[in-house]
Amino acid sequence: MATEALSIDRARSAERIERDIETLAGPDYTRSNEAIRRYAYTPEYRATLDYFANELGALGLEVSFDPVGTLVARNRPSGEKVFGVGSHCDSNRNGGKYDGTMGVVTALEVCRLNADLGLDLPLQLISFLEEEGSGFGQMLLGSRIVAQRVTEKELREEFRAIDDERAFWDHAEEAGYEPARWRESIHILDDLSGWIEMHIEQARVLQDTGNRIGVVNAIAGYIHADVRLEGRADHAGATPMDFRLDVAPAAARIVLEVERLAREAGGGTVGTVGEIELEPGIINVVPGKARLSLDTRGVDEEGFRSVARGVESFAQEAAEGQGLTATYRQRQTLPATLMDERIVGALEAAAKATGEPFMVMPSGAAHDTMCVADHVPTAMVFVPCKDGISHSPAEDAEPADAALAAEIILNAIRTLAGER
Amino acid sequence: MATEALSIDRARSAERIERDIETLAGPDYTRSNEAIRRYAYTPEYRATLDYFANELGALGLEVSFDPVGTLVARNRPSGEKVFGVGSHCDSNRNGGKYDGTMGVVTALEVCRLNADLGLDLPLQLISFLEEEGSGFGQMLLGSRIVAQRVTEKELREEFRAIDDERAFWDHAEEAGYEPARWRESIHILDDLSGWIEMHIEQARVLQDTGNRIGVVNAIAGYIHADVRLEGRADHAGATPMDFRLDVAPAAARIVLEVERLAREAGGGTVGTVGEIELEPGIINVVPGKARLSLDTRGVDEEGFRSVARGVESFAQEAAEGQGLTATYRQRQTLPATLMDERIVGALEAAAKATGEPFMVMPSGAAHDTMCVADHVPTAMVFVPCKDGISHSPAEDAEPADAALAAEIILNAIRTLAGER
Repeated sequence: MATEALSIDRARSAERIERDIETLAGPDYTRSNEAIRRYAYTPEYRATLDYFANELGALGLEVSFDPVGTLVARNRPSGEKVFGVGSHCDSNRNGGKYDGTMGVVTALEVCRLNADLGLDLPLQLISFLEEEGSGFGQMLLGSRIVAQRVTEKELREEFRAIDDERAFWDHAEEAGYEPARWRESIHILDDLSGWIEMHIEQARVLQDTGNRIGVVNAIAGYIHADVRLEGRADHAGATPMDFRLDVAPAAARIVLEVERLAREAGGGTVGTVGEIELEPGIINVVPGKARLSLDTRGVDEEGFRSVARGVESFAQEAAEGQGLTATYRQRQTLPATLMDERIVGALEAAAKATGEPFMVMPSGAAHDTMCVADHVPTAMVFVPCKDGISHSPAEDAEPADAALAAEIILNAIRTLAGER
Repeated sequence: MATEALSIDRARSAERIERDIETLAGPDYTRSNEAIRRYAYTPEYRATLDYFANELGALGLEVSFDPVGTLVARNRPSGEKVFGVGSHCDSNRNGGKYDGTMGVVTALEVCRLNADLGLDLPLQLISFLEEEGSGFGQMLLGSRIVAQRVTEKELREEFRAIDDERAFWDHAEEAGYEPARWRESIHILDDLSGWIEMHIEQARVLQDTGNRIGVVNAIAGYIHADVRLEGRADHAGATPMDFRLDVAPAAARIVLEVERLAREAGGGTVGTVGEIELEPGIINVVPGKARLSLDTRGVDEEGFRSVARGVESFAQEAAEGQGLTATYRQRQTLPATLMDERIVGALEAAAKATGEPFMVMPSGAAHDTMCVADHVPTAMVFVPCKDGISHSPAEDAEPADAALAAEIILNAIRTLAGER
């Protein structure tokens, strides 16, 4: 039986969301005058956690921290099922006000609405740390610790602060946490019946298609790799075309093949060459070496993996045909993460009930939800950000869209609770 | 009436050439322990000029210097016609023993043979300064001064030493020369009936075709330019293929078009993209800006100019077709220089008479002879250098090939003198 959708006072929610966002953009909450710069175990990060703790505490939620400092707030005792909402409130080093933080603020607004409307839905808010990697150079670090996707050695020794090169472990202890108990962090997921993270889109699909809401049905996996070509550097004037082992044309063919393969794979698979280096890199020397980066992603695992395989074999052929050598080396890979169909369906229905334009879409970027999804049924909600700009002080997004997202998330959770 | 070719004692010539080369690679003649590093107005350069002055003086030539320090040695009084031979004896900053210096050494050997064999051909040796631009960042500087291809303002103010940023003018004065009289330098060409410069090839055509001698019939002109593309930087994961303004594929198409246009132009025209820069140049960001360098050259003026025009218009089309903008900007250009047919013919006949493998070929690289050719009939002779490597301590060439070149130049001058 479908739950009838509740309408909320969106203007009031937008106002509260804007107030939270603007407060957390103030000087106590960022280490830079020109950007949001906030990362774990700094006073500014602590102040941000305190802000959320106070607001959540005022709503009657019990606030605690896991052994590494993940904020957890719930309105039911441990052992009772709760529905998870949240995101991260760290920023990248030259960040904006919305990435991550707007997701936690929207989760807080869901808790406020739950109280305001007397719904008493069982909720648990989580704010993960170090999603951006600004503190220790490790993306999704907090949610990877929770999902046990790290090793103790990494935490004790290998993950080191960008600022002072001291270990994550030491910083966590100094901040009053107990990293030695990090394996217990996974228990913050124990009681979750589901999880919804709201986030700005960080691209321009919603803006360019005129949608205010994206219901995320999958998070793309990816492969990062490098292709290296080796030929021979020669005098650009004195070496006839037929005497060359020029890597530039082969590199160019690979760039075009990346584009062709990504389009051929379809289903939203993308392929990007963001880095090209020629050696020696001088106008009057035929380049003898080249390196190209490959970034390919998609929610269709076979799609993006076929792009990477295709690039590897094409590079070999393109090189051999011209007397060059090619090597392909993978840097890193993560599988695609499918969202839970039931939660996606509930979000779609709730979005539809608002009468506002929305779409179902994949996420090309990685999010903490990828780690949560190891253990809990999950989904995400996107709101537009202006011109797709993110990771920049120029980042901009609408509190009214976040209020709409809060309404949709609240209604989806009601539906899911009712279906139980 | 053809002059019958003289055979020389090539082994003895090779020995003398090797001795000169090795002497000038000694510690008194280079500012680096690991390379030849020699440029105007340094003690090492002065020592090199002194070495040649002593050797030439011992042969009875009168040695002088023009107002900026160009070495001139002749065996006839001013006003009488002489045939010019020579090159430059500065090196680039990380140079080898052969580039330039082997040409002056071979010209010295021509003077020695002229004396040994009692030929008494009227000769003038010139050693130009600053061909490599190592002192003041200006290529062909000495021969451009002689050919009056500079301005007084450039010499007084604009051309500044790489080492201390003081003006060329000040350095020349400090070294005892009279730069204020630089306009008189052109008179060192007044009595020349012709000019032949010997140089290492700096490419691998001679080696790869099994020839010991190249008779140069033209020096390529060139255009240096930059193509800039502007699109939009976007998140590589979150931005679908159809939402991108990615400059990398357009840059790739331009690289391939440079190659296609150069091959289509034919006649030895070459085209090179030696520099590619993407911005921001990060694996997970769709590049929003690109810069590519263009180097196109050839002895067929219309050939290389058509490549440059073709690249400019193709860049516009490739950009517009994808919503990008393209700008094309020329950095520098020099016209092609045809060698004198009579001198080329005499060199060919002399080369043929040696029985050794030779070819007629263009020079892709620029040489001082381009400036001499403004005023005097000229040609050049190339000898192989190992694997085409030049501008490097690994530069290698055979004194025996230089001896062969000396024999050919001597015989060509005899023929030309006889034809007069």
